[in-house]
Amino acid sequence: MNWTSEIKAAHQRILPYIRRTPTLTGIDLGLPLPVDVKLEHLQHTGSFKARGAFNTLLSCDVPEAGLVAASGGNHGAAVAYAAQRLGHRAHIFVPELAGASKIELIKRSGAALSVVPGAYADAFGAAQAHEAETGAMQIHAYDAVPTVVGQGSVMREWEEQGLEADTVLIAVGGGGLVAGAMAWLQGRRKIVAVEPETCCALQAATRAGTPVDVDVSGIAANALGARRIGQICFGLATEQTLETVTVPDSAIAAAQTLLWQNMRQLVEPGGATALAALISGGYTPAKGEKVAVLICGANPAPDPFL
Amino acid sequence: MNWTSEIKAAHQRILPYIRRTPTLTGIDLGLPLPVDVKLEHLQHTGSFKARGAFNTLLSCDVPEAGLVAASGGNHGAAVAYAAQRLGHRAHIFVPELAGASKIELIKRSGAALSVVPGAYADAFGAAQAHEAETGAMQIHAYDAVPTVVGQGSVMREWEEQGLEADTVLIAVGGGGLVAGAMAWLQGRRKIVAVEPETCCALQAATRAGTPVDVDVSGIAANALGARRIGQICFGLATEQTLETVTVPDSAIAAAQTLLWQNMRQLVEPGGATALAALISGGYTPAKGEKVAVLICGANPAPDPFL
Repeated sequence: MNWTSEIKAAHQRILPYIRRTPTLTGIDLGLPLPVDVKLEHLQHTGSFKARGAFNTLLSCDVPEAGLVAASGGNHGAAVAYAAQRLGHRAHIFVPELAGASKIELIKRSGAALSVVPGAYADAFGAAQAHEAETGAMQIHAYDAVPTVVGQGSVMREWEEQGLEADTVLIAVGGGGLVAGAMAWLQGRRKIVAVEPETCCALQAATRAGTPVDVDVSGIAANALGARRIGQICFGLATEQTLETVTVPDSAIAAAQTLLWQNMRQLVEPGGATALAALISGGYTPAKGEKVAVLICGANPAPDPFL
Repeated sequence: MNWTSEIKAAHQRILPYIRRTPTLTGIDLGLPLPVDVKLEHLQHTGSFKARGAFNTLLSCDVPEAGLVAASGGNHGAAVAYAAQRLGHRAHIFVPELAGASKIELIKRSGAALSVVPGAYADAFGAAQAHEAETGAMQIHAYDAVPTVVGQGSVMREWEEQGLEADTVLIAVGGGGLVAGAMAWLQGRRKIVAVEPETCCALQAATRAGTPVDVDVSGIAANALGARRIGQICFGLATEQTLETVTVPDSAIAAAQTLLWQNMRQLVEPGGATALAALISGGYTPAKGEKVAVLICGANPAPDPFL
C-alpha cells in the first residue's frame, strides 16, 4: 500500500466537502509547556469522522439501498451527514450511550436512526442484520482502508498549515485516526497514542501481541470505546513502534476544563483525551521538545443547547 | 491621527502577548450564503478586549497604584489578565449582571474584584471613586485611542490572514472594536455595525447627530450594553458613513444556536450578534457579495463548567 499517494488522493477527493480546520501554535494552557493544537472538532458534525465518511462514499459505488453504519455517535453522524450531502439514504445504529448531542446530529441529517439497547457491539449487530436484509453498504467506523486514508488527511493538512512539532498526541478508540496519522507521517514525527485507562484496546493489543477484546467504560466510552483495536491500526503500530499512554478519566475531565477556561472550546471527553496525557504525566516531553495536540471531537453530553 | 501606523505599532507591541486567532473561509452555517469567520473569542480571556488592554498597558507608564477598570465583564477580565502578565496590580469593578463566567475569569487573574449592585454606570462610578482615592490608572473600555488602536489589530491580522470579503459584520457596544476596524480599513471594505435592538447607542447617536444616552437591556447587555457610544467611534462613523443594523434578541439567540450546531462554538450573545444580522434579515448581502463575520466573545452564562 502506498499510503502517501492514497492519502493525497483522498484529501483531494474530500476537499470540496470538508473544512480545513484551524490550527494555533504555542498556546498557553497553563501547562509547563506551550502546545500547538489543531481544532479538528470544528469539522462538519463535530469530529474528524467526516473525512473518512466522505472519502469512503466518494471512492465507491453506493448501492440503491444506501448506507448503514454502527457507531458510538460521531461516525454515525459523519456518515449521515456525508450521505445527505451526496444524496444517499443512510440508516444509523447507535447504542443508548451515544447521548443526546450525537443523536440530535444524526436526526438533523435526515438519516434513519435506531437507538439500540446495550453497548456498541449490540448496535453493530443490528447494523449487520440491516445490511444482510437490505443490501445497504456498511461503512466501518475505523478498520477500513478508505476510512483510514480519509482520517490521514488531517495530518497532511496540518503539515500544509506549517506544523513544526516534534511530537503529536492523538486520542485512540478503534484507531482509525492514529492509523491515518501513522500512514501519513511514516515516522517523520513521533506520535503518542493516548487512550483512556478504561478503553485501552491498543494497549491491550500491544501487550498481547495481537488485537484482543477489552471491556470499555468511563467518560469517553461513547467515542473511544472500541472493544478491539483495528487490524490496520495494529499493523501500522507494530511496524512503527508507536508509543502508547493511558490516562484516567479525571485527567480527561481536567483537560476538558482547561480547554474551556483557556480557549473557550467545549469539547467532549474523547476530544480532550490527547491533551489529558500532558496533565496526568502520562507523557512528559523532553526539554525543548515541541508538542502538538489534536483536538478531535466536540459533541459533549450534556449538550448546552438541548 | 495616522491610524494606519498607530495600529501597525500597536499590533507589533502586543504580538508577544496575544493570540493570532484562527479564521475560516466559506463556512456553511445553513444560511443562504457561506461566510468567512474570525474566531476572535479564542483570544485570551475569551474576547478581543485583550488587544486593547495589552496595548494600553504597554504604551503608558502604569503607576505604582496599578490599574482600575469598570466593565460588563470582558474588558475587566482582559485588563486583569494583562495586568497579571505584565506584573501590575489591578482592581476591577463589575455590575452584578456581569455573570459568573466573567467574574470567574477576573478572579482567576488574581485581580481585586468588586461586584457592584446596579448597572454598568454604577460600576463605573465606583471605579472613578477608586481612581480618585488611590491614584490607580483608569483604563476605559472603549473610548480611548490606545484601546481603539489595539482593537484595530484584529482587522490588520485578518487581512494578513488573507481576508477576501467585501463586507465585514461587527457587533457594537461602546464601539471600540468597530472603531478599530474603521480606523484600519479606511473604507477599503464595507463594515456593517450590528447592535441589539435593546442596546443601540450607535444607532441612537446616528439619529440624533451626536452621542446620546440610551437605555440598555436584553441578552447581550453585559457585553454590548454601553449607555453612550464612544466619541472616537462616532467620529469615525460620521467620516465613513458606517452602515448600522439592529437585531432582536431572538436572532442573537438563533445565531448562538447556529454557531454551536454547525461549528461547535459556544459563544455569548454579544459574540453572536454580528451573525444575527444575517439571520434576522437586518443585513441582506447583494448577489455575489462576500461576507465575513467577526465572532468576538465567548464568556456565556451559564458557564458550562461553573
